[in-house]
Amino acid sequence: MTEYREFYRDRRVAITGGLGFIGSNLAHQLVGLGARVLLIDSLIPEYGGNLFNIHGIEDRVRVNVADIRQQSTMNYLVQKQDVIFNLAGQVSHIDSMQDPYTDLEINCRSQLSLLEACRRNNPAVKVVFAGTRQVYGRPATLPVTEQHLVRPTDINGINKAAGENYHLVYNNVFGVRACSLRLTNVFGPRQLLKHNRQGFVAWFIRLALEDQEIQIYGDGRQIRDFVYVDDAADAFLRAGASDACNGEVFNVGGSEPIGHRDLVELMIGAAGSGRYRFVEWPLEKKAIDIGDFYADSSLINRTLGWTPRTTLRDGIERTLAYYRAHLSHYVPPIGPQVATR
Amino acid sequence: MTEYREFYRDRRVAITGGLGFIGSNLAHQLVGLGARVLLIDSLIPEYGGNLFNIHGIEDRVRVNVADIRQQSTMNYLVQKQDVIFNLAGQVSHIDSMQDPYTDLEINCRSQLSLLEACRRNNPAVKVVFAGTRQVYGRPATLPVTEQHLVRPTDINGINKAAGENYHLVYNNVFGVRACSLRLTNVFGPRQLLKHNRQGFVAWFIRLALEDQEIQIYGDGRQIRDFVYVDDAADAFLRAGASDACNGEVFNVGGSEPIGHRDLVELMIGAAGSGRYRFVEWPLEKKAIDIGDFYADSSLINRTLGWTPRTTLRDGIERTLAYYRAHLSHYVPPIGPQVATR
Repeated sequence: MTEYREFYRDRRVAITGGLGFIGSNLAHQLVGLGARVLLIDSLIPEYGGNLFNIHGIEDRVRVNVADIRQQSTMNYLVQKQDVIFNLAGQVSHIDSMQDPYTDLEINCRSQLSLLEACRRNNPAVKVVFAGTRQVYGRPATLPVTEQHLVRPTDINGINKAAGENYHLVYNNVFGVRACSLRLTNVFGPRQLLKHNRQGFVAWFIRLALEDQEIQIYGDGRQIRDFVYVDDAADAFLRAGASDACNGEVFNVGGSEPIGHRDLVELMIGAAGSGRYRFVEWPLEKKAIDIGDFYADSSLINRTLGWTPRTTLRDGIERTLAYYRAHLSHYVPPIGPQVATR
Repeated sequence: MTEYREFYRDRRVAITGGLGFIGSNLAHQLVGLGARVLLIDSLIPEYGGNLFNIHGIEDRVRVNVADIRQQSTMNYLVQKQDVIFNLAGQVSHIDSMQDPYTDLEINCRSQLSLLEACRRNNPAVKVVFAGTRQVYGRPATLPVTEQHLVRPTDINGINKAAGENYHLVYNNVFGVRACSLRLTNVFGPRQLLKHNRQGFVAWFIRLALEDQEIQIYGDGRQIRDFVYVDDAADAFLRAGASDACNGEVFNVGGSEPIGHRDLVELMIGAAGSGRYRFVEWPLEKKAIDIGDFYADSSLINRTLGWTPRTTLRDGIERTLAYYRAHLSHYVPPIGPQVATR
């Protein structure tokens, strides 16, 4: 069943956060499928946008630097698009607790800007929102289905839940077709690893490659599930091409839940370098931690046929290979970074 | 068990939205209990703040006109307060769909302003937030418990859910004690009835008193539960005085679910004036309607001993008596209002 891939030939597709981690991997797939791709990215230095992420396809996509908080700009850019993959966001949980207003501006207000732009200027567009498992908070039951209560443990989770719900309301009330994919831990090539405030997998990959010490909090038994970025991108492609998912939310999780310690050992083994040590939880991280988490992704499987295809080991090996070849494009050229994770 | 009432003697208590409907009724009770009451209200003309609401206690409360979106002002006003009843909000569902940004500013950003002010300047304070049953959206099961999914049908419900969750996170992470009361339809004296965009009960009361026609959407079988404002205020008093509710949300609903038509007949009978007619649902209202709703309030009963004490009939009669005596203070003096509801 590859009809959803044929769907994209000559389609106009915009990606917010298009120079970021998942957005750029999605762009690579879309270019291969013959789509006409517009990448919208703010290139805010601390965030994940990186022009090297489109290395190899830079002549086959259009890049528009813009902040999606800017209503008038969005009013223009959404026009004539068939599908918008809406991935722009502030993704650091820790940052959201120190500066809740910026998280609010990006994860709430800017989602309204995008949706208002569509409502007024392109109501026929389809929007696929990048949601997050963070909205669930600490799981009451495992695996977590979409019926689990939304009780975020941090500001970022709250604002992402609001942004997601805006999409559902604009679908239901204004007819701007939209759905949300609640991603668990996505990993793979093109992820930011210049600092450690956005996802620990990339940071661990970097430390392993640099033969540094990885710090594992607590006893390392904490469980997560991981999705390789090509599989995550495949979920977006399926959702963008189907009306069966409109107005709904879907978990997009991995098939091999694993403890932190086992994950790190897998990484170090695959890298042939790096080491680890158990350390106490930093208080600020413990306070917003969600404990064990893994998702039940059967709803998106039933609705859109999606399932993760890349094993954790394969995904880690591909990721290591990518950064071995291109690490200099992801690590600042001058001076060491603070490696506290 | 009246210990929670004794608690307020000489306590410093602030109420945001303190000149509004529930806030002012709460102020009347607090003055009677010997509290030192500060009322914070923006007095934005379209909203519910009304200086007449404190008629009779104006010399025993302090009024500070301020917008809770103003961080520096809130930083000052929260200081030295023992309890803050946080009732300021934009409450119109229809307005939130036409102007989502203002709803975002008031129901999301301003809640962060208040909580940040407490975190930085008065972390020992207790905050009780006025939540809403609107966060649940269309009920999947009745009566609705706190375990029901949060799937709002409109922007107002989304933003109120975010505001509520901020309180829980500030409780859990920063130790600013807080809880939320999810109010169903509250009615009674001192509610805004100058326009029809905030709650239909007050609007119906006005039309009945003015011997006008009440328009009932659809077949009038739609069920709601109603809480008399003195009972709602009692829930706030109990929550403010107890640490058993910190970090939790509680339904505050009525004990007599009733269809719209039956409610209107009860009102008209009690008023001895008014009439009604069934009309088609306006599209903009149907799109965000939640269908039948009534809440299960057993959790707050178990935790804080609260239960509604005023019958629907008594509540309506007291409300009619209040507005009969004071209608001129709630209806603009010049020209008819658009009575479309």
